[in-house]
Amino acid sequence: MAILTVCMNPALDREFYISDFTVDKLHRLNPENSRMTPGGKAINVAVDLATFGVKTIVTGFIGGYLGEVVLSELRKTSNLITTNFVHIKEEIRENIAIIDEKNHTLTEINSSGPVIPIDDLQHFMRRFSIMVPNVSLIVISGSVPGGVPNSIYGELTRIARKSNKIVFWEAKDEIVSESLKISAPLILRPDFRREKRLFGNALNSEQDYIDAGKEAIRYGVKMAVLSYKIDYDIVVTEDGVWFIKPLVPIEHSHLLGTGDTYMAAMVHKYLKTNDLIEIAKYGYAAALAKTWYKRKVPPKLSDIEKAMDKFKIERVE
Amino acid sequence: MAILTVCMNPALDREFYISDFTVDKLHRLNPENSRMTPGGKAINVAVDLATFGVKTIVTGFIGGYLGEVVLSELRKTSNLITTNFVHIKEEIRENIAIIDEKNHTLTEINSSGPVIPIDDLQHFMRRFSIMVPNVSLIVISGSVPGGVPNSIYGELTRIARKSNKIVFWEAKDEIVSESLKISAPLILRPDFRREKRLFGNALNSEQDYIDAGKEAIRYGVKMAVLSYKIDYDIVVTEDGVWFIKPLVPIEHSHLLGTGDTYMAAMVHKYLKTNDLIEIAKYGYAAALAKTWYKRKVPPKLSDIEKAMDKFKIERVE
Repeated sequence: MAILTVCMNPALDREFYISDFTVDKLHRLNPENSRMTPGGKAINVAVDLATFGVKTIVTGFIGGYLGEVVLSELRKTSNLITTNFVHIKEEIRENIAIIDEKNHTLTEINSSGPVIPIDDLQHFMRRFSIMVPNVSLIVISGSVPGGVPNSIYGELTRIARKSNKIVFWEAKDEIVSESLKISAPLILRPDFRREKRLFGNALNSEQDYIDAGKEAIRYGVKMAVLSYKIDYDIVVTEDGVWFIKPLVPIEHSHLLGTGDTYMAAMVHKYLKTNDLIEIAKYGYAAALAKTWYKRKVPPKLSDIEKAMDKFKIERVE
Repeated sequence: MAILTVCMNPALDREFYISDFTVDKLHRLNPENSRMTPGGKAINVAVDLATFGVKTIVTGFIGGYLGEVVLSELRKTSNLITTNFVHIKEEIRENIAIIDEKNHTLTEINSSGPVIPIDDLQHFMRRFSIMVPNVSLIVISGSVPGGVPNSIYGELTRIARKSNKIVFWEAKDEIVSESLKISAPLILRPDFRREKRLFGNALNSEQDYIDAGKEAIRYGVKMAVLSYKIDYDIVVTEDGVWFIKPLVPIEHSHLLGTGDTYMAAMVHKYLKTNDLIEIAKYGYAAALAKTWYKRKVPPKLSDIEKAMDKFKIERVE
């Protein structure tokens, strides 16, 4: 059975490499300095899983010309990826990154994306319910578009749990906090990229992170994996608290997409073992291996194996 | 019979309205501040002709995701427009304009567009030859993509003239100079937007423009319409030289697309009269009427009629 990845708010990611990018000028762009790739966290997870040889179905909302590009590029990526989106009228998000490697600037233009009509949301809920019995595991990750409540992760997880399906989440605080009131995933990886915050509290000290992880466990989460100070992780389960720390320096400019790789690798490992700490370690190793590559390329399984002894894990509670 | 407009190098035109657009920042864009329209001069001519009630077939090269958007939007514009493009593998041009109305800046990112393979060029030449007998008039305007020689306007016109078809051109100097060596159109409107130059000479004085127009007539052009100092025109035929000057102030920020409207209106008038000066006057009136609108919207025929007494024409030679 395939994995279902839920990408509520897909995007077309575009990169323009322009030297000396300045306002009020005409810049010319050659095709080799321009890239167009499908984006959205759960789509990235599906792409990573495909490189690990795992079949996925990607669902969510898609629409407009940009949506057609995402669908078409996604289908080209791998025949292990199937798409089953609800089609909407509006354009999906477009994230334009103008990268000036000469002056080290990154100028971004992100469109706000669609507002989902209630009818389409209902259509999605019905379709999700039909898909659930036919998949082995569900990953929900990334932002939600307008018109979709932050509680959607909880709603979908409640449906999944009725069929005894395992669910993994990666999302920002608003979604996690509101959704946990409804239902909890097996594994939660809060998305701290924009804000280091969980359950409405700003997280600063190690203890703040540990407390937030324990709060998630009280809501029914089996393992919370919290990224702390970029390159080290705090893992909280019902049984205790662990720190995972790298033994090698980490290239911070290559962190893009490591969260998605972390999720994909945990899924891959879960298909082989139920040992939560082993799953966390494998996710961490994959994220570490990913930083060895500059671009948005998933690491090879052999790189993940190589990364397994490049970090240490210690139990602190 | 329909008009054939030849758009060798179509583009997807995109406008982003962003206040305080600055480098090295993340800017968010709402859908209402973003526009996507088919671009390329001959496509604009076809759109204008459709509003005048004239049927067109648009031909040229199209490809990639951007090409699909252009085709689909063009078909939505009017059912008076038919498309008959040669499909290429590469993406067509994308012209992104980032407009900051607060700080009055215009930042542009123009992709260089495709290089046409020789096979596709040959395919286009054959297809053009087949279309020519079935159309009443041919407009060739705008730039040519890589892989297509600047002499292409001349080559196409030679084919058209074998079937006794009338041809209009609007293009920049490199194309006009090289193409006139092969064959001449009935009406030539040099495109002076980037460079005020014809037959390799920079044009400064009124006399330079008149001389350049006369040179075009020697090549076989029946009427050259030369835009001088933005809002006044110099018309040269075998019979003499005329100046057309506005009697009303012209909003220079609304000049976008006036050249294409000029061409479309001349075509529209040509279908009713062979009087070249009447044709030039009607084109000028349409371009003037167009400046009454801010956006890339063609003027109504009633506006063109109103504009007919807002300028004067005087014979100088």
